[in-house]
Amino acid sequence: MRWFLFGSFLFLFSKFTSAQSDSVFIRKIADEIFQHSTAYGNLHTLTKTIGPRLSGSPQTYEAEKWGMEALKQAGADRVYLQQAMIPHWVRGGMDQAALVSGNNRQNLAVIALGNSVSTKQGGITAPMILIHDFDELERRKNEIKGKIVFYNHPFDENFVYQFNAYEEAVPYRVTGASRAARYGAVGVIVRSMSSSTDNFPHTGAMIYNDSFPKIPALAIGLRDADRLVKATAAQKDLRLYISTNAHTLPDTLGYNVIGEWVGSAFPDQFITVGGHLDSWDPAEGASDDGTGCVHAIEVLRALKATGYKPKHTIRIVLFTDEENGGRGSAAYSTEARSKKEKHIFALESDAGGFTPREFSFMGTAAQIASVSAYLPLFAPYGVTSFSNQGAGADVEPLHDSMGVLASELIPDSQRYFDYHHAASDVFEKVNKRELELGAINMAALIYLIDKNGM
Amino acid sequence: MRWFLFGSFLFLFSKFTSAQSDSVFIRKIADEIFQHSTAYGNLHTLTKTIGPRLSGSPQTYEAEKWGMEALKQAGADRVYLQQAMIPHWVRGGMDQAALVSGNNRQNLAVIALGNSVSTKQGGITAPMILIHDFDELERRKNEIKGKIVFYNHPFDENFVYQFNAYEEAVPYRVTGASRAARYGAVGVIVRSMSSSTDNFPHTGAMIYNDSFPKIPALAIGLRDADRLVKATAAQKDLRLYISTNAHTLPDTLGYNVIGEWVGSAFPDQFITVGGHLDSWDPAEGASDDGTGCVHAIEVLRALKATGYKPKHTIRIVLFTDEENGGRGSAAYSTEARSKKEKHIFALESDAGGFTPREFSFMGTAAQIASVSAYLPLFAPYGVTSFSNQGAGADVEPLHDSMGVLASELIPDSQRYFDYHHAASDVFEKVNKRELELGAINMAALIYLIDKNGM
Repeated sequence: MRWFLFGSFLFLFSKFTSAQSDSVFIRKIADEIFQHSTAYGNLHTLTKTIGPRLSGSPQTYEAEKWGMEALKQAGADRVYLQQAMIPHWVRGGMDQAALVSGNNRQNLAVIALGNSVSTKQGGITAPMILIHDFDELERRKNEIKGKIVFYNHPFDENFVYQFNAYEEAVPYRVTGASRAARYGAVGVIVRSMSSSTDNFPHTGAMIYNDSFPKIPALAIGLRDADRLVKATAAQKDLRLYISTNAHTLPDTLGYNVIGEWVGSAFPDQFITVGGHLDSWDPAEGASDDGTGCVHAIEVLRALKATGYKPKHTIRIVLFTDEENGGRGSAAYSTEARSKKEKHIFALESDAGGFTPREFSFMGTAAQIASVSAYLPLFAPYGVTSFSNQGAGADVEPLHDSMGVLASELIPDSQRYFDYHHAASDVFEKVNKRELELGAINMAALIYLIDKNGM
Repeated sequence: MRWFLFGSFLFLFSKFTSAQSDSVFIRKIADEIFQHSTAYGNLHTLTKTIGPRLSGSPQTYEAEKWGMEALKQAGADRVYLQQAMIPHWVRGGMDQAALVSGNNRQNLAVIALGNSVSTKQGGITAPMILIHDFDELERRKNEIKGKIVFYNHPFDENFVYQFNAYEEAVPYRVTGASRAARYGAVGVIVRSMSSSTDNFPHTGAMIYNDSFPKIPALAIGLRDADRLVKATAAQKDLRLYISTNAHTLPDTLGYNVIGEWVGSAFPDQFITVGGHLDSWDPAEGASDDGTGCVHAIEVLRALKATGYKPKHTIRIVLFTDEENGGRGSAAYSTEARSKKEKHIFALESDAGGFTPREFSFMGTAAQIASVSAYLPLFAPYGVTSFSNQGAGADVEPLHDSMGVLASELIPDSQRYFDYHHAASDVFEKVNKRELELGAINMAALIYLIDKNGM
């Protein structure tokens, strides 16, 4: 169950005697970012000069160099790399699929899922079976053998918050292949995790269950998914052709890129602000998660530009390998724990650069009560509620292993899954001012927690 | 000063014993719209089949036919036209401008302002003077004669709510020509009313002061505006070439398109829901105000589809001539008053189909107090505040002349002026789910006011 805090906390607010000066300082942060932000320019460089940044790809290393330089430019006292062994999955060429009906052959917009295996060279052709959900798969388990399962489980449009629809549908992408392989399927095609009006297929991580054969797994664009449904209704005995060269190479080296701004009072206490530097490969990784990286860098640049002196050490972390392993965040929290670092807060941005609406927190009731009183300070900049719907994959490990209060910026979610892991996730879909508003709200939260403590 | 209501009204909320059933019914409205909305399809037809709809243009009449049919399809009991005499300004061809420096000539992205006059055939060339604001114009009034004034008054980026920046800058577009003509200017070029990152010029209405000569007036794209500023810094004695064929024809006939859904208890008491059917001519008028039209039509369709029976008569009004005259809204309020109609509420959507954030009201303190308690019902759908920042050009006349509570949907404002009155105001910039969320919040407000009265 998700809770929300609205302005009822106005009544608690009066206990903060510094509220007025905080409000003035946050306005100063906003002016600084609206007038001088480098977030949009940084995003342009990251997306247009470097481009897709899948773990292990050459662009990942370009992105690390870029991140180090951007953090230096933003004024970090110290910039360094933190090593992690990361998976190295490669697409290996163009993925292909077609609907085959007699001599008729219609190409389909597909993309192999991350971590999936290839078909045999030249592809495979097999009868298609349309499956709507796992219940149906179980009921029809005797019909699966030798077939390609087409999972057509659409986003539930009734969810206002699109991440809820994603959460409900994504098991088909992540576990659908092995669940079908258990009953003898030779491949799966999964309806893309999106409610877009276009036909771009959306990739993303899948995971094999080692108990069953590994079979190829692809996502299909929504219009073509609907086309398959219609074809199924019109005719039995349809076959699908699929071909991918996806394969996994040995793990390789990746790096979290870290910039530190040393605290004046508690230099050995840390506040983390991050996004992830890696992205899926079909596009530029603009909204996932170029925007999070440039948000985090902008928090540093803008707070420095206002003349603020942090009490705690602010660490900007551009995490590696969020998309297909989470090895970067694991390395970060493991090192923090092994060094017995004291962390007081961790914030990430990994839900796009859209207009901000909320911060979601993960922490104890006491921790959350302590930040709740700040809510009214954010309303002028678009964040009108705090919730407890988790904190994002890169900072949750700090919470889980060390009890650190963690949080994620929640921008408006309506557009995110239009682009997520698809060829449409490009710079042009990001609005400069919406991006800047995200950085403003993040910088304000970091300022408040750094200044007033937890 | 703008006020906001946040969730402190949660505390008033308990007085509404129907709050829970209202919440359930609004969820039903939302499900209906997310699953079966025709808003996005209607918008596609209006923008892609009909296109630009400037007052007096042939497409205006196509749009009226379309509006009547769409209202019938949505289930109106009665659809009719309400006549108004509307202005008929025409662009008359391509607008042109260039920066002239010796033999060097750089074309500029410009568009003549609505209601403006033409240059002489073949255009005019005159020295340019860069003016930042009206104070500077007054100080330098002796330098204006014989020149083309370039007003470079950018949006104030520090405003979070972009309509505030628009309000502050728009006098340069509306009155700049006559104020410069007073001192002998032969033309004006105005920095577009936008903070976009592209170079599309943005047109919009201007008004001549009849005491001074009418001179040509154009808007210039932001990148070219910055280019002119740089050129001015680098060199004196720059000249501008401008050419337009803009002119005004005699007034012509236009029509508000009205669909009525007759009330079951008070059929002679009206609730108005509207958008405006006309648009500027460089693009399709998607966000201004195709989205408002399809929002209003969807309110009717969706409430009918839920099985709701309105107590009052719901009138969907697609207003004519909002952009360059306001004659449609004048005709509507004049007829309402002359017929002594009883109106209890009027709502419009004319700020885009972006994710909803607020309703702004115009009414008495008692009227506003009466609706305030509803605020918490909207939070799940994105509206988290009520404000009193006016109610939009098409419903304010009902308030002004008859004291009717009026309101406007306030979507997130960050993207609106990227497209407003420019060639970029196209269907593709509208997100289906954001559009639907606007209709959900509007339908919920109409439901609450119809059911519970004012």
